[in-house]
This record gives sequence, C-alpha cells and structure tokens, in this order.
Amino acid sequence: MNALGTHVVLELKECSPQLLDDLPFIQKTLLDAAEATGAHVVGQTFHKFNPYGVTGVVAIAESHLCIHTWPEYAYAAVDIFTCGDGFDPHKAANIVIEKLQSREPSVIELKRGLLAQVQRVGAR
Amino acid sequence: MNALGTHVVLELKECSPQLLDDLPFIQKTLLDAAEATGAHVVGQTFHKFNPYGVTGVVAIAESHLCIHTWPEYAYAAVDIFTCGDGFDPHKAANIVIEKLQSREPSVIELKRGLLAQVQRVGAR
Repeated sequence: MNALGTHVVLELKECSPQLLDDLPFIQKTLLDAAEATGAHVVGQTFHKFNPYGVTGVVAIAESHLCIHTWPEYAYAAVDIFTCGDGFDPHKAANIVIEKLQSREPSVIELKRGLLAQVQRVGAR
Repeated sequence: MNALGTHVVLELKECSPQLLDDLPFIQKTLLDAAEATGAHVVGQTFHKFNPYGVTGVVAIAESHLCIHTWPEYAYAAVDIFTCGDGFDPHKAANIVIEKLQSREPSVIELKRGLLAQVQRVGAR
C-alpha cells in the first residue's frame, strides 16, 4: 500500500434513465455494492430532486460511496473511496455499473494521501 | 458551463492533528463551509473512528462535501462536488483549508459529466 486511500471515480454514461430517477433502486444499489464487498455501513443519506435526479451517500467504516444522477442525461457520477485492504472498490464499482446498466462507463483510480507525501506524526 | 458537475479534490497535508481528530470541529467546519457558500444541507453523517480519524459527509441540494481524516498523518482527504452555479466549491475549499490549518494543501478540479460526452435524452 502506497497511499492512505484509494478513490475510484466513475463516470457512468448511457445508463437507464428510469433507474437513475428511482431513489429506492439507487439506495439499494449502493448498499448492495457496499455489503457485497464486505464494507460496513455506518450512515447514509439519500435525496430525490425535483424534477429529476437522486443524490446519495453511504458512509462506511472503510470510507464512503456516493452517487449523483442526471436521468435526463442518462448519466451518473459515482465515487467510491476506501482505506485499507478490507474492501475492494473496483468490485463495488462493477456492481454499480452493472445495476445501472451503463453502456459507457469510465473508471479512474486516484490515490489519496500518498505515503511518499505524508508522514506519521509523533506518538499521540 | 461545459459539465454537469464540478468536483474539487483536496489533499490537505500538514493539518493540525488535534483538529483532525475532533468530530464536532470537523462537522462544524464542513457545515460552515457549505452554509457560507450558500449551499443547502439536506443530510449529514459523521463518525469518529478508533483510535484516530473522522469521516463525515454532508449532502447538499447542490451535491456533497465529504472528509476523511488521518490525524496520525496530519492529513485529510476532502471532496467537494457541486452542480450548477449557485455554490462555489473553491470558496468552500478555502474555508476548509483555513479551518484545518493545512500548511500544504493541494487542490485539483475535475469536471464530471462533460457535456461533450453526455446527451440529453428524449422528453420524459
């Protein structure tokens, strides 16, 4: 491990517009992705916007998953952030891609808190 | 506007370790940053981890702010995601940087949902 966190940035294009506007479905998708990959959910908040779109965030002990959907563009922005090795963010990403039926997903991985750049501070 | 969302990625190094481990302070910082920039908070979840660290997410009508702190590395990963023009994510970012006393902040802006890549789907 060369970083404190791994952040997977998903640009999900050509999703199902109907699914992107379905709050219970979006919520279940994120929770399923978290749980299927062994993450431990510690909090969540989901909202439906008028006229379109859902925002959702799931806080997990291993960090977070969040989603913002634009059904009118068949697009969702998803971020999956994890620390440690207990949770595979790419496995969670694949679940979300499949559930939202994205025909054109892009996946970028960002390393957060590079250990070459941060130093452990004195004993606390 | 050439994208649906603007995502500001903050790597906050050399922060105050004490502040990074202080859940009420972290919570107030994110809420202050959201409110000072005119965002509308619609949900939030914050957690203190053992032995160190805080995770927090604030869902706003304009998208979200989230933070994960590693006090033992004096480091925080912060993401500020917004859509529309009603909320300036860089102004919020500057508030967080100042409050956490980061002496080495990095700021990267990602455009999410590039309008050159997504298309409005038929009337719904």
